[in-house]
Amino acid sequence: MEKRNISNEVHETPLSTFLWGGKDRIQRRKQVVKALTSNPIFSNYPPPGSLARKESWTKAVHQAKELIAISFREKWTHEQFRDAVRMFDGMLPVQPQYRIFLSNLERQASDEQKAEWVPKAEHFEIFGSYSQTELGHGSNVKAIETTATFDKETDEFVINTPSVSATKYWIGTTGIWATHSLIVAKLIIDGKNYGNHLFFTQLRDLNTQKLMPGVEIYELGPKAFQSMVGVDNGAMQFHNVRVPRSQMLSRNAQVKRDGTYVPPKNVKHSYGSMITVRAIMAEITGYDLLKAVAVAFHYTTFRKQFQQKGKSEETTVFDYASVRYRLLPLLAQGTALVIVGQHVKRKFDQYTEAMVKTGDISGLEDIHLQTVGAKVYATHIAAHGIEVCRVACGGHGFNALSGFGRMYANSTKDLTVEGDNYVISQQVPRAILKHYDAKSENSVPSLSYLSLLREAQPKQKLSVRSKSDWFALENQQWVMERRLAHLVEQHIRATKAGKDTSFSVHELTMAHSDYTYWRGLWEVIPSVDSSIAEPLKAIGQVFSLHILQHAHKDLFGEYALSAAQRDSLADAYDDAVQDLAKYARDVIDGYGFTEWEMDSALAKAKDTPYEALFKGAQASEMNHLQHLWPFIISVRNVWKEVQAEKARL
Amino acid sequence: MEKRNISNEVHETPLSTFLWGGKDRIQRRKQVVKALTSNPIFSNYPPPGSLARKESWTKAVHQAKELIAISFREKWTHEQFRDAVRMFDGMLPVQPQYRIFLSNLERQASDEQKAEWVPKAEHFEIFGSYSQTELGHGSNVKAIETTATFDKETDEFVINTPSVSATKYWIGTTGIWATHSLIVAKLIIDGKNYGNHLFFTQLRDLNTQKLMPGVEIYELGPKAFQSMVGVDNGAMQFHNVRVPRSQMLSRNAQVKRDGTYVPPKNVKHSYGSMITVRAIMAEITGYDLLKAVAVAFHYTTFRKQFQQKGKSEETTVFDYASVRYRLLPLLAQGTALVIVGQHVKRKFDQYTEAMVKTGDISGLEDIHLQTVGAKVYATHIAAHGIEVCRVACGGHGFNALSGFGRMYANSTKDLTVEGDNYVISQQVPRAILKHYDAKSENSVPSLSYLSLLREAQPKQKLSVRSKSDWFALENQQWVMERRLAHLVEQHIRATKAGKDTSFSVHELTMAHSDYTYWRGLWEVIPSVDSSIAEPLKAIGQVFSLHILQHAHKDLFGEYALSAAQRDSLADAYDDAVQDLAKYARDVIDGYGFTEWEMDSALAKAKDTPYEALFKGAQASEMNHLQHLWPFIISVRNVWKEVQAEKARL
Repeated sequence: MEKRNISNEVHETPLSTFLWGGKDRIQRRKQVVKALTSNPIFSNYPPPGSLARKESWTKAVHQAKELIAISFREKWTHEQFRDAVRMFDGMLPVQPQYRIFLSNLERQASDEQKAEWVPKAEHFEIFGSYSQTELGHGSNVKAIETTATFDKETDEFVINTPSVSATKYWIGTTGIWATHSLIVAKLIIDGKNYGNHLFFTQLRDLNTQKLMPGVEIYELGPKAFQSMVGVDNGAMQFHNVRVPRSQMLSRNAQVKRDGTYVPPKNVKHSYGSMITVRAIMAEITGYDLLKAVAVAFHYTTFRKQFQQKGKSEETTVFDYASVRYRLLPLLAQGTALVIVGQHVKRKFDQYTEAMVKTGDISGLEDIHLQTVGAKVYATHIAAHGIEVCRVACGGHGFNALSGFGRMYANSTKDLTVEGDNYVISQQVPRAILKHYDAKSENSVPSLSYLSLLREAQPKQKLSVRSKSDWFALENQQWVMERRLAHLVEQHIRATKAGKDTSFSVHELTMAHSDYTYWRGLWEVIPSVDSSIAEPLKAIGQVFSLHILQHAHKDLFGEYALSAAQRDSLADAYDDAVQDLAKYARDVIDGYGFTEWEMDSALAKAKDTPYEALFKGAQASEMNHLQHLWPFIISVRNVWKEVQAEKARL
Repeated sequence: MEKRNISNEVHETPLSTFLWGGKDRIQRRKQVVKALTSNPIFSNYPPPGSLARKESWTKAVHQAKELIAISFREKWTHEQFRDAVRMFDGMLPVQPQYRIFLSNLERQASDEQKAEWVPKAEHFEIFGSYSQTELGHGSNVKAIETTATFDKETDEFVINTPSVSATKYWIGTTGIWATHSLIVAKLIIDGKNYGNHLFFTQLRDLNTQKLMPGVEIYELGPKAFQSMVGVDNGAMQFHNVRVPRSQMLSRNAQVKRDGTYVPPKNVKHSYGSMITVRAIMAEITGYDLLKAVAVAFHYTTFRKQFQQKGKSEETTVFDYASVRYRLLPLLAQGTALVIVGQHVKRKFDQYTEAMVKTGDISGLEDIHLQTVGAKVYATHIAAHGIEVCRVACGGHGFNALSGFGRMYANSTKDLTVEGDNYVISQQVPRAILKHYDAKSENSVPSLSYLSLLREAQPKQKLSVRSKSDWFALENQQWVMERRLAHLVEQHIRATKAGKDTSFSVHELTMAHSDYTYWRGLWEVIPSVDSSIAEPLKAIGQVFSLHILQHAHKDLFGEYALSAAQRDSLADAYDDAVQDLAKYARDVIDGYGFTEWEMDSALAKAKDTPYEALFKGAQASEMNHLQHLWPFIISVRNVWKEVQAEKARL
């Protein structure tokens, strides 16, 4: 077996420090990994595929308690705690506490409310969730039916679920765990509907865990692919649940004692929570994909299959094009998601900070556009990519012990949650067209290509003359810009013809994001330290030329590549893949996912994949069903019994 | 709610009879569905996502026994029994009995051997499996390491597992259930290796279910996505297991008492089992996909989201392009898989029959080519399509109660089992090039396009002038042939340059199959009864024009479509989709998947999806974890405890 650097240590090298987002972050990562791998309660055995859901959840609850205790003892930051929680593919019931409960309190509660609730939430003295989605209402938040009617007499809101479709549904950690939730409900005062507001509502008694009066909750049942086994999503109805007026989150809008409604100053503000959630999603999605790529890399550099002529040994499967051309583009895409994701996140934090200080929200739309595109792009690439990794590992990838199933289950939910990818894809062309119509594309760098739609002069051909020209960024940009211009033109044509573009916008959003990620990636790569420049350039070229393999097919007429250009593009991509193959082990080791994180029989420190798979079979609980044997034996008598039956008749 | 035809009855209409392959087959289907839906042991409750694997398997064993008894009582045919087994997405331990155990006995056992073993197997007095794959060896069957060494002294074969990588692995229903297996092992006589042969080998004692001496078996452990919960795959090693000479399957090759080896007359014969398996796979894969399409159709014609301007109610989501352009091509593709799949199956049966009678195997290669392409094509479309259905249903598709997760788990394994799709994709271009090099493409109708590679005359442009021209088959064929010619040309170029084409052959195989399925579909549609012609023509046009949306992008230079042709092609496809939308409910009702088969909260006869999802939550076993509440409450004291700890230090 080739030497494989797999362990439970986090190594610090210039490359790993860069790939993990800097020194601070890799230090935090080190601390978290150490805590998780040194404590037997976080053991991945037995595999979730063997357990009943209630057993898996029980395990998750015990892990959650231990994690909370460690975070207090070791004084982890919020971010560190969230890093740790993310390492559990099946998730833990503490999931929404910081991610969406505290973050919404921070943004939408008044200072007074924060002073009361935030410390309790940070100390896990209350368990929070966020109740927005209803059975009948997802992306269309305006259609939410739950009502919070102000009762002037008692100075309370009365929360109600007027129909089955108004049932709060998919609410994370609310089926069993949460004691409090931020309920999104229509505010009604004197019969007038003021739209959705957030109500801090107690769901369960803190001392008994019993439901509060009028609150009816059921746990949702299992998810596809045995996903999210650590989370008790809830289905919840309210029957005249009374909440004091002081518990409507009132940083923005307020209701006075006499029922006067004070509207928020900035209506856009309330979309902030979705932007944050999506920004974080885009940031971590790359790592999810890369973990799967790492497992596939470790396995395919071990596995051998089919002999080449004249060789006595079978060929390592990683050396086949069928494996390299699947895994290496994913290594490049995952890395782009990480690097550009960090870029976007930093930008958003800067804007938020500026916004809070100055009240200036001019940058919000641009960052919104980037974030929305990034969510669709990142989750699409990651979910599909993880499946590609599994399938590239052949039959053994289908074994639950490979870990790919668990990883895909964790990743694919992001295609539809917190903004269905097709629904939010509509926002990208909407923003593009707004600038196009206003001729303001120059204010947004990533819309540069729109000028092509205005050009009346004769179209120039691409000047690529040789394979090496394809590695030049200006030629890559030439193709991407013209492809995007074509897609936008198609979109305008369809829109003008009154066609429904809700399907085609997904392709446009992906193409738009190809371009913005390409830009972002090449903004970062040239400035990295020379000691790590070579592998990153190789990553960058595979990322770029992989896009071009498809993008050039959307160039038509004068823009279409010549036959020689198509051939040299294919050759350039082959060279780029070959080049990255040389650095692949360095990059995989740079990420250095630990044995505990990968949790895969295909990527063990001490056992080969075959040894680990065989040990996995030896450990199967199914080897101990001797009590079923008499029943199995009885099946072999059915034929005789049925014949005897028939003879009696 | 719109009227939905969901029940547990199989309806016979002209369309349903056609879609289910004729009167006999729909009668068989009716009988099987009645038996399964009228017997509470086949109830789908509780959902597998709630159960531990051993509970699910125990349930499957009980269902298997009942199914066997019913099949004997009602005198089901083999095919009917297999139809019934296929209706269990999680599968049953009886899976391989007919599919691969008996089918191999039929083909490879001598008449004497058949007389002894076949009745026992048909009566389930012995439980069979087929042991080919090893931990280290999948598609490369030649590399199998297990040995069967002839011992002249005792007239026995001695079976051994020489290494961990030689462990028989993934062997269906062998972990706990099987009593006998057909072991693929290298035959060794006097130190000479005669290659792989099949050995009928007893694994477990019939009276006690205990392992036979020298046989070491473990159950494999869980699969990805909680797939195949009804199957106990085995990891198996042999330690000097002795098998009488009479138990080597000897229809083809034989070993005489003195160790003389009599080779098989027809070496190709031994590939027969894989061809059959793949033919059956291609046939049923379409139905797997269509079941998911049916659930998605029922849900998306119920669900409403977002208001259109001026409307008081939200829009039914099926009416959005984002849903129609995902589901309707799948309805067309699934139907093509079914119709053409039946075509291919009939052809194969005819050839096999002719082969047995006349010994003429001339048609075998052509059918082999068609079958291999069909397996890659059908499984790729079905697995990806089922996921598209789930995602098109948004968040609720991710609920396990929607059934999509279970369906995908069942379907996606086919991408890698019984021939990894990338590995077997290599066989299609190999066969194409063989004919190209021999200039014999005229003997294979689906290779017609190869003549384009030989044409020296000036290339003619496509004569499409209007939208309606795109519905003409000759224009569709024009595009598909030229696209294939281009891909084959690319393949030849890469091969000549010494490039590894193991990645690109997948695309070529898909394009080749687009064309052969397009041909097959339009061979069938014009001859159907006029009463069902309209919906099938609509299916045919969406299938064809959907292919063209992508295919035309592989036309370059003189062959490239003009801007007007591209626009009219897009418009023609829009018309085709709109046309099929009108017939969609007829076609879905024609398939008429029963409530029991769909097993989805999104497709219930009496409850709306929202009612069924809410009832599903009410029934969750997770609502009864009161014993965990004290522990959950204790988590809220961790902060104080840690502070006290710190104060003590």
